[in-house]
Amino acid sequence: MKLLHTADWHIGRTLNGYSLLDEQKHAFDQILQIAKDEHVDGVVIAGDIYDRAVPNPEAVAALDKMLREINLENKIPIYAISGNHDSAKRLNYGRKWMEYTNFHLNTFINEAFTPIETDDVQIFLLPFFDPLDARVYYQKQGMPEENVKNITTIGAAMQLIVSDMVKLFDKNKKHLLITHFAVTPNKDEEIPLTSETTSKVGGLATLTTDQFKDFDYVMLGHIHTRLASPSETVRYSGSPVKFNIKEARLKNKGKGVDIVNIDDSGITHEFKPITPKTDLVVLEEDWPTLCDADFYKKQPINQDWFAITIKNFDRSEHVQTNIRAELQKRYGTIVELDYQIDQDKNELENTAVNINEISPEETVDKFYQTITGKDLSNKQKTIVENIFNEVERENK
Amino acid sequence: MKLLHTADWHIGRTLNGYSLLDEQKHAFDQILQIAKDEHVDGVVIAGDIYDRAVPNPEAVAALDKMLREINLENKIPIYAISGNHDSAKRLNYGRKWMEYTNFHLNTFINEAFTPIETDDVQIFLLPFFDPLDARVYYQKQGMPEENVKNITTIGAAMQLIVSDMVKLFDKNKKHLLITHFAVTPNKDEEIPLTSETTSKVGGLATLTTDQFKDFDYVMLGHIHTRLASPSETVRYSGSPVKFNIKEARLKNKGKGVDIVNIDDSGITHEFKPITPKTDLVVLEEDWPTLCDADFYKKQPINQDWFAITIKNFDRSEHVQTNIRAELQKRYGTIVELDYQIDQDKNELENTAVNINEISPEETVDKFYQTITGKDLSNKQKTIVENIFNEVERENK
Repeated sequence: MKLLHTADWHIGRTLNGYSLLDEQKHAFDQILQIAKDEHVDGVVIAGDIYDRAVPNPEAVAALDKMLREINLENKIPIYAISGNHDSAKRLNYGRKWMEYTNFHLNTFINEAFTPIETDDVQIFLLPFFDPLDARVYYQKQGMPEENVKNITTIGAAMQLIVSDMVKLFDKNKKHLLITHFAVTPNKDEEIPLTSETTSKVGGLATLTTDQFKDFDYVMLGHIHTRLASPSETVRYSGSPVKFNIKEARLKNKGKGVDIVNIDDSGITHEFKPITPKTDLVVLEEDWPTLCDADFYKKQPINQDWFAITIKNFDRSEHVQTNIRAELQKRYGTIVELDYQIDQDKNELENTAVNINEISPEETVDKFYQTITGKDLSNKQKTIVENIFNEVERENK
Repeated sequence: MKLLHTADWHIGRTLNGYSLLDEQKHAFDQILQIAKDEHVDGVVIAGDIYDRAVPNPEAVAALDKMLREINLENKIPIYAISGNHDSAKRLNYGRKWMEYTNFHLNTFINEAFTPIETDDVQIFLLPFFDPLDARVYYQKQGMPEENVKNITTIGAAMQLIVSDMVKLFDKNKKHLLITHFAVTPNKDEEIPLTSETTSKVGGLATLTTDQFKDFDYVMLGHIHTRLASPSETVRYSGSPVKFNIKEARLKNKGKGVDIVNIDDSGITHEFKPITPKTDLVVLEEDWPTLCDADFYKKQPINQDWFAITIKNFDRSEHVQTNIRAELQKRYGTIVELDYQIDQDKNELENTAVNINEISPEETVDKFYQTITGKDLSNKQKTIVENIFNEVERENK
């Protein structure tokens, strides 16, 4: 069996107000072409299909078309789940009709215990959930109230869910899991992450690979770079499109999909890159350089998008200048414009945390550190996580 | 062929903040039972399936369940269109998968020219549209620009659309149309409407029955009472649930569905009533009567909902009284509470126009009348209609 693993499409997302829909359609066309060229037996979309609980109508129409092209026009099965950005109730609409053409889409925990069966593989589709969802599910299953109360973390819930899935295992088949969480390597293993792919991405609540040891392979969504994959068999495909400056700094390293091959000899994955239509170019230069024709004419001006930080910038020398207009004249679309007043580059990097790029939980964590000089305790982290879960729930 | 005709479910609607979802589910159960008892060949839902372009998640889940029960569990075909309350783009999601089980759902004009064919009937599904939608459609069809510009009213657009449908007619079959507009009898015919079912309901833009003379039968949505049906063969089913005080004043007259029977001898329709779970009782009495146990104990207190108008009411005599609380103690749920200061009942009726019950276009019309003493001219009406179309378009 051969599967294409992708995730985090975030259809409908914008980058500082600029729609990414054309970029997402361009990436989708490549995903579909790879699926056809590789003759895959299915496309896995591991959550965060939409960018928000209530996507705009254009996003709804675009996604419908993409899913039709895969599933109806090319007859390729889809194995999909909802992520934390999707509304489970909204995305669930119509799924029972979609099952008729092997488009499987789970958005609720209770749907995760009916694996999709092929001759030699069981595929479990576990959507994103929060601890309250798990408590409600296990309460309905008749679990005693005192046990239900103990499900306060994703880790505790995942342990129960995986052990229930293992009970359904057919020993003659391989076992795949598709889910949508932050998963890090086990504590005793070396963390293979670079500073650019910190394990903090995606919130404080993390799971570790050992919780998934019963599965032969786990296809994850949630973290947008495949470089954050915690092991050889528990893997992120990453998002097909760059969503922010931090990802743009990685150039196009790691933007693509995985082809996962499952046969008697084992499970292998092979990376297939996706190239952007409009790239996002990050420039950090001083004002004379940015305005120098020799410099900017070497850039993909009037073609790609630019995120520009002007170094060593003294605003008082440019009071009469419309900085953005001057740069747009030379470069075209500028999706982000920053000024670096301070000359200390290290300090720039340290203060360059864009709160759009980190999770709400991390924002609280960083704020707490700044004010008190201490880290949040685990108990405090759980409280923060629960509050944000409640807030997100309200919106869905 | 036997069809069940219903429309205007408005799933997700509230009545002064009170959710009607339980009431709508109760009505749906009866609709499904009628469909099963009558062994119908299809359920027609003639638009305004949801109450708003962005229904809440509970409405989405409730509708999904209803449609599954009809189409997947009971294998009954569905013939549905979007109305002016639905978002065409949002409701369109998934329709291509639904077609596999004979759930037909059109939300765009271009989809209306592929009739559903049975052995002896052609069913045309024409969703609600506005003149701009029609202009865009005919422009794409290659119509010369000067002709496109002339499509400024629903009437002009409908004439073009119907003539294009007639070209597709199979002469050996009967021709049904399902659509969602205000249609009135021809000008030379007597208008069979009572004051309670004024033709003004649903906006100023109206069509007349002669525009549909090529069809054997037209199943309409948009106007919430079947009593407004403009002819024997151009008919409203009405909404299955009462949505406002005006409808409550009609008691339960006319709330239900039509069973439409199509055979060689002709087309007949038979009304099947739907009974409410929680009724909406309108009381217009003076304060002593409302507080009199002999009076209120005869009412369905603590069971149905009440809309109460206190007649001959002098607030200065009751400054210490929490009127709503006193009435709730006696009656239970009060969804609307009004005071009639003036004793002239005629004047009460004249001033009792609730702007929630009339269309935005009518509100402008009434305001203009009040200020200037004149009616809006036809040209002015068209301008007002176009403005509201633009505003609605923005929201979808």
